[in-house]
Amino acid sequence: MNEEIVPDIVISRLPGYLQTLNQMAKEGYHTVSSRRLAERLRISAAQIRKDLSFFGGFGKQGTGYSIYFLIEKLQEILNLNYIWQVAVIGAGDLGRAITRYQGFASRGIEIVLLFDVDLDVVGTTVGSVVVRHVDALEEEIHKRGIRIAILTVPALAAQSMADRLVDAGIKAILNYAPLTLLLPDHVHVQHIDPVLHLQRMMYYLGDE
Amino acid sequence: MNEEIVPDIVISRLPGYLQTLNQMAKEGYHTVSSRRLAERLRISAAQIRKDLSFFGGFGKQGTGYSIYFLIEKLQEILNLNYIWQVAVIGAGDLGRAITRYQGFASRGIEIVLLFDVDLDVVGTTVGSVVVRHVDALEEEIHKRGIRIAILTVPALAAQSMADRLVDAGIKAILNYAPLTLLLPDHVHVQHIDPVLHLQRMMYYLGDE
Repeated sequence: MNEEIVPDIVISRLPGYLQTLNQMAKEGYHTVSSRRLAERLRISAAQIRKDLSFFGGFGKQGTGYSIYFLIEKLQEILNLNYIWQVAVIGAGDLGRAITRYQGFASRGIEIVLLFDVDLDVVGTTVGSVVVRHVDALEEEIHKRGIRIAILTVPALAAQSMADRLVDAGIKAILNYAPLTLLLPDHVHVQHIDPVLHLQRMMYYLGDE
Repeated sequence: MNEEIVPDIVISRLPGYLQTLNQMAKEGYHTVSSRRLAERLRISAAQIRKDLSFFGGFGKQGTGYSIYFLIEKLQEILNLNYIWQVAVIGAGDLGRAITRYQGFASRGIEIVLLFDVDLDVVGTTVGSVVVRHVDALEEEIHKRGIRIAILTVPALAAQSMADRLVDAGIKAILNYAPLTLLLPDHVHVQHIDPVLHLQRMMYYLGDE
């Protein structure tokens, strides 16, 4: 199924489809048309049909998609049928909020490691995770075979910490530091910065 | 300059261009080619040139872009030449982390209101902001003419709180609750959910 190369922009939309489908399943729906799903997601129905066609379609003409079937297929495509263990680097406000975040467990993500440099914080517990010193970063990540890290350190420390993560075997980094990381092509990076999202909306507010 | 309708996907990339240009300015660069900017941003140089052409180009053939000129133009396009006041709804871990976030002030954003329902939290101070009860939401937002809100309440409360924000005059919502909000078309919504970003990367990790 992954033999054909699917554009990354298509992949980027699948988690949102999955989330909305899960929401509709909870609301009691069993089937959904691409038109209705499109309304929820604020994109076009043609876009959804085209995106899903990369994986074989899944819809029946006229009856729409079976929500449970589509959820199952999307979970399979996104490799969500098992628990992914994740390390968080930086136990400041944000790192602590992320580690305690209730929305991970139900969606197959478990924060198992939390690192910081601050000796006052090392050894304390956040949620159910004990904060470890970053000196143990490489050893702990290796030992557990972790491939995904969430980076919440200050901007000035982010690049060097990201380099260490890559050396330790991390293949995917979710970066909350407000800068663009320079990393090898084989490492997947996603960047979360509230400012970028706010600025995108400010473009439209200026005219109103 | 905004008379031509620029596709939203183009707008979505401008804040990232701006961030990387600011980073390069700090590193001491004065000019940058689209090729070099593209390497930093992990997109194609053609994409950057095409995106900027919506606003008139800005580059000289052969010499690349003047970084300071481009920063100034992007700030103008995105309406970043003044301070935007923002309200945060929800003073839990995440709302508190956002309110205290150091990366806002230098980029033209000021958190001026923070609301919660929890009477134990109302009246306490987070950063320099006093937590107010949500009962005062409409009044405070009106009084200050605030148009942007950041929503960090639990998923179950998010839709009803978003409806209240829209009624209070909010035009743009940055939503951290893990669900798709149903809102009128004239309201701009951006959704930040670390799970969606992680899932997008898991697609690629499954094959490795």
